[in-house]
Amino acid sequence: MFKNIIIYIFIATFSSSSAYAGVDQEVAYIFNTFSFLVCGFLVMWMAAGFCMLESGLVTTRSVSTIAAKNIGKFAIVSVVFYLVGYNLGYGIPEGGYIGTFSTWTDTSSIETGYSGASDWFFQTLFVCATCSIVSGAVAERIKIWPFFLFSAILGGFIYPIQMGWEWGGGWLDALGFADFAGSTLVHACGGAAALAGIMLLGPRIGRYSTKGEVQSMEPFAASSIPLVALGTFILWMGWFGFNGGSQLALGSYEDATAMSTIFINTQLAACGGCLSAAVVTRLVGGKTDVIMMLNGCLAGLVSITAEPLMPSPILAIIIGAVGGIIMYVGTNFLNSMRLDDVVGAIPVHMFAGIWGTMIVPLSNPDTSYVTQFIGVAAVIAFVFIVSYIVLLIIKNTIGLRISEEAEKLGTDKSEVGVVAYSIRD
Amino acid sequence: MFKNIIIYIFIATFSSSSAYAGVDQEVAYIFNTFSFLVCGFLVMWMAAGFCMLESGLVTTRSVSTIAAKNIGKFAIVSVVFYLVGYNLGYGIPEGGYIGTFSTWTDTSSIETGYSGASDWFFQTLFVCATCSIVSGAVAERIKIWPFFLFSAILGGFIYPIQMGWEWGGGWLDALGFADFAGSTLVHACGGAAALAGIMLLGPRIGRYSTKGEVQSMEPFAASSIPLVALGTFILWMGWFGFNGGSQLALGSYEDATAMSTIFINTQLAACGGCLSAAVVTRLVGGKTDVIMMLNGCLAGLVSITAEPLMPSPILAIIIGAVGGIIMYVGTNFLNSMRLDDVVGAIPVHMFAGIWGTMIVPLSNPDTSYVTQFIGVAAVIAFVFIVSYIVLLIIKNTIGLRISEEAEKLGTDKSEVGVVAYSIRD
Amino acid sequence: MFKNIIIYIFIATFSSSSAYAGVDQEVAYIFNTFSFLVCGFLVMWMAAGFCMLESGLVTTRSVSTIAAKNIGKFAIVSVVFYLVGYNLGYGIPEGGYIGTFSTWTDTSSIETGYSGASDWFFQTLFVCATCSIVSGAVAERIKIWPFFLFSAILGGFIYPIQMGWEWGGGWLDALGFADFAGSTLVHACGGAAALAGIMLLGPRIGRYSTKGEVQSMEPFAASSIPLVALGTFILWMGWFGFNGGSQLALGSYEDATAMSTIFINTQLAACGGCLSAAVVTRLVGGKTDVIMMLNGCLAGLVSITAEPLMPSPILAIIIGAVGGIIMYVGTNFLNSMRLDDVVGAIPVHMFAGIWGTMIVPLSNPDTSYVTQFIGVAAVIAFVFIVSYIVLLIIKNTIGLRISEEAEKLGTDKSEVGVVAYSIRD
Repeated sequence: MFKNIIIYIFIATFSSSSAYAGVDQEVAYIFNTFSFLVCGFLVMWMAAGFCMLESGLVTTRSVSTIAAKNIGKFAIVSVVFYLVGYNLGYGIPEGGYIGTFSTWTDTSSIETGYSGASDWFFQTLFVCATCSIVSGAVAERIKIWPFFLFSAILGGFIYPIQMGWEWGGGWLDALGFADFAGSTLVHACGGAAALAGIMLLGPRIGRYSTKGEVQSMEPFAASSIPLVALGTFILWMGWFGFNGGSQLALGSYEDATAMSTIFINTQLAACGGCLSAAVVTRLVGGKTDVIMMLNGCLAGLVSITAEPLMPSPILAIIIGAVGGIIMYVGTNFLNSMRLDDVVGAIPVHMFAGIWGTMIVPLSNPDTSYVTQFIGVAAVIAFVFIVSYIVLLIIKNTIGLRISEEAEKLGTDKSEVGVVAYSIRD
Repeated sequence: MFKNIIIYIFIATFSSSSAYAGVDQEVAYIFNTFSFLVCGFLVMWMAAGFCMLESGLVTTRSVSTIAAKNIGKFAIVSVVFYLVGYNLGYGIPEGGYIGTFSTWTDTSSIETGYSGASDWFFQTLFVCATCSIVSGAVAERIKIWPFFLFSAILGGFIYPIQMGWEWGGGWLDALGFADFAGSTLVHACGGAAALAGIMLLGPRIGRYSTKGEVQSMEPFAASSIPLVALGTFILWMGWFGFNGGSQLALGSYEDATAMSTIFINTQLAACGGCLSAAVVTRLVGGKTDVIMMLNGCLAGLVSITAEPLMPSPILAIIIGAVGGIIMYVGTNFLNSMRLDDVVGAIPVHMFAGIWGTMIVPLSNPDTSYVTQFIGVAAVIAFVFIVSYIVLLIIKNTIGLRISEEAEKLGTDKSEVGVVAYSIRD
Repeated sequence: MFKNIIIYIFIATFSSSSAYAGVDQEVAYIFNTFSFLVCGFLVMWMAAGFCMLESGLVTTRSVSTIAAKNIGKFAIVSVVFYLVGYNLGYGIPEGGYIGTFSTWTDTSSIETGYSGASDWFFQTLFVCATCSIVSGAVAERIKIWPFFLFSAILGGFIYPIQMGWEWGGGWLDALGFADFAGSTLVHACGGAAALAGIMLLGPRIGRYSTKGEVQSMEPFAASSIPLVALGTFILWMGWFGFNGGSQLALGSYEDATAMSTIFINTQLAACGGCLSAAVVTRLVGGKTDVIMMLNGCLAGLVSITAEPLMPSPILAIIIGAVGGIIMYVGTNFLNSMRLDDVVGAIPVHMFAGIWGTMIVPLSNPDTSYVTQFIGVAAVIAFVFIVSYIVLLIIKNTIGLRISEEAEKLGTDKSEVGVVAYSIRD
């Protein structure tokens, strides 16, 4: 018995210096938890990025409304995701389709490896990002409170259900679908909901000429390019938390190393998207279109989000660069369809998101193109159809679009009652 | 003796997996120190948030002045807090009233559990936040250098003394007063000083009509709503450091878990404040007032700051929501009193701060309403009276308010000599 | 043998509470790696700071161009530094002059103490900062794509070579030159390249009157002071990562303590620079020039960057304050030479950077003024001469400066095709 104690001590002591499971359980718990908190506040920061990006891209008459929509949606979605969304996603049975209708509670302990509260914080900010994507596309003509209502449904029900299919261990996960940080589950999901929104809303008055040409300059010029640039930099910064935190752990050599690789690929994919957009716009239009460059960064970031760990740096650049071109083509395609996506949310988040998800098998041998396609198609079909139905019901009951007079006045005056800029000499 | 060694080893080995004191002393030191640094740079970031918030809420003729005041005050207060403030607060005898007049020095070691320098960094940014609160309220008519002088006195003497009463282990702490991260010690303190300031300064010329009605639109319209939104998001982000870092430690299971809970409650209280303000302004005025929503977030954040750890998530939402309503009512109350608080600093920081501190006993059984009231009353009375006297002396010596001609010209031209916006076609 | 095991266990247990090497290898690896990632995203954030600072300081007709230049340069330099720059600097032989022409690969393991990918991430953002410095100085008249080309050369070749001399263990390091976080290697380097740029470009049309007086007001007024303030706060925040991360480790008591000291000195030097600039402009010009205050912060930060660890807090304030005055004098000096540095990049980064590097021996006894002078002179001479030659070649081939008509139209319209602000009632 005495000998057993000695051996036990020896093993316990020795195991703490081995390469695997070498980190003390409590220390790993702190690392994992702190990683969720740090990455979480970076993703929270993306809410500001979306707000700035949209504020800059809309016309000057809808900027206050963007602020109201973004801060209000951020608040509503956080509450709803706490009340019902989290468990609707993560409470799913293995291989199942839907979780439980119940309020989140923290059931973590030191054995679970991280604080459940820190995980809730991190996951909540993901659903907020999804809902932010919609906000920009439908800007300048949607009513504020119906938008809040839809955000609550998207964040409380639609997003969590499809997210649970994969991250909650549902049927897509059982199938082998892979979406590391959410090219599809977050970005294409938000883009699909946005697409339903702009189809039901129709374009802004005067956006497309009777000949079908897009009126991209005055009176639809972006109100502030510096705010667009600021928003892009904020989103870029936040994306390190978005992708890096999706490693879901920091408390081991392997996790810390993986997070570092994710940071590199995230950085380089954004660069790729920026540069391809710059080159294309310079070659096609003669000018170096700064808005396309900025959206190119975002498209690059969305593209790498499905698999930021496995690609080599070179491949990350290429994945991002292709994402930038897809965004550029997609923007023109939507305009040719007279679909008025004010900030380019759908090309950036849905089109590049599809691309990023579909290209995962190139670097990740555990995935297949067929499974990836099934996952993308299922998510987009589900989100688009349910969103369309919900928005249609809203449209035919409390109404979705502001009146023509209100639109001509601008949503800032008609809906919010606060003019965005009062700059005088 | 041999047996004793074995037992000693057994205990040492065993204790490293127990819940308490399981983390190696040096590892805990690094966690605690890094937590101060990370939370500290988040609180530092709040200085930018205050600057953006105020820049957006003042009229276009005082925006450069806001930048000058915010950056200058940030610099002065940091230096003064180093030279005298820190030890005036933390050098207090147990149960006492005032600390020592001496310059901060780092006396920490591995045994103290964290780097003293990291603690200084974190605490310094708290006093900077306090002084930021004043800046917005007194905007557009205070002279820059007298404002700097008052900031130095507030940050070097007034704030540290009352802060030491509680966080330095002074008489309020001995009494059982509880203020986790500073609803009273930081926010109501700043608000009380701001109240003294606007009472002595009087309102801006033309702000209130002879009939007593507030002129909220032109020529007093907010210069830039996007900057107000940006400032709010920055402050919200920084608040995770503000409240989370006030756990003062990260190096154990209990601390990491507590910090996570604090992050959740901070997030949800902000949401509550935003939503209650949105609903109230929509119901009362017909429009969804974005400025009230943004200030509602901040009021929610201030409300939860006194006790971000103990409330349930639901209670955090409610505490924040009530804070938002108090802010709304308080804003109208101040205007009815012809007290011109340019950015709503007093309703947000003082009124919601009082609410947050007074409601602590609801979730924290170790506190009492009587003690909380004594603490709030003592701090506000002390800060208001001393600030009033100091500002009165400044007013009657070097002067506090700019001349009428300078005010009509705008502080940017008269005081700073740099126009805020030069936007031309 | 049995006794040996007991002794071994005893030592293993005991050693984990000793002051030196007390942290488990894997835990230290995680700390060091996470420190690079956190400090890295802070330095990444500085890219946004430079963009906002420059956007605010240029005239309203070049703001979109600033966004395009900053985001494009950020993307290009990251890619080039990956492809060739990193190994050109860090692949240098001991005491040598140039590294290898090869693409970066991660050769780290748990034994190297940190993830190589996290180090790459951190170092890449340093070279991006260097190239940002150039962007502001040459604004409003440089062509976009030649600027991108020069950025690629600066970031891929010029910066890495001189950086390797010191941080790669080259001849300057062997000589005993000290530059902790890059007052010379990053800031003076960027400033020297900027100086070559503005000498070859010449001033903006009409910037200097025929009498040699600078036209600082309209039509050359800064477009947005709030953006300048925002940019300064962002840079200030990022600098904690810049200087703190340059400790290159966090995983021990000594490293965590050093990082804390660095944070304090960084904070206080910025304060010193701000205050000295405020006092000087108030005394000389009568107004409290907010632009000088903001640039004063940056000059203070640059000044402490060469040695943020060794100075006492008081000395850090003084070093920063002198940096602020040098910036002020340097700005006037450049204008008197008719050198048109649009944002004051050269006074802030090169002049204050020289000062910061030269004053290192005052607090660091392991350095000498002679060696510091050799290092500064070598770096500036190398960077300036090579940049001048490269830019001269660009000028005489594809061209460097936009046409006179394009300049009168503004670079936003002529180069980017997107107007920065479309603010209407």
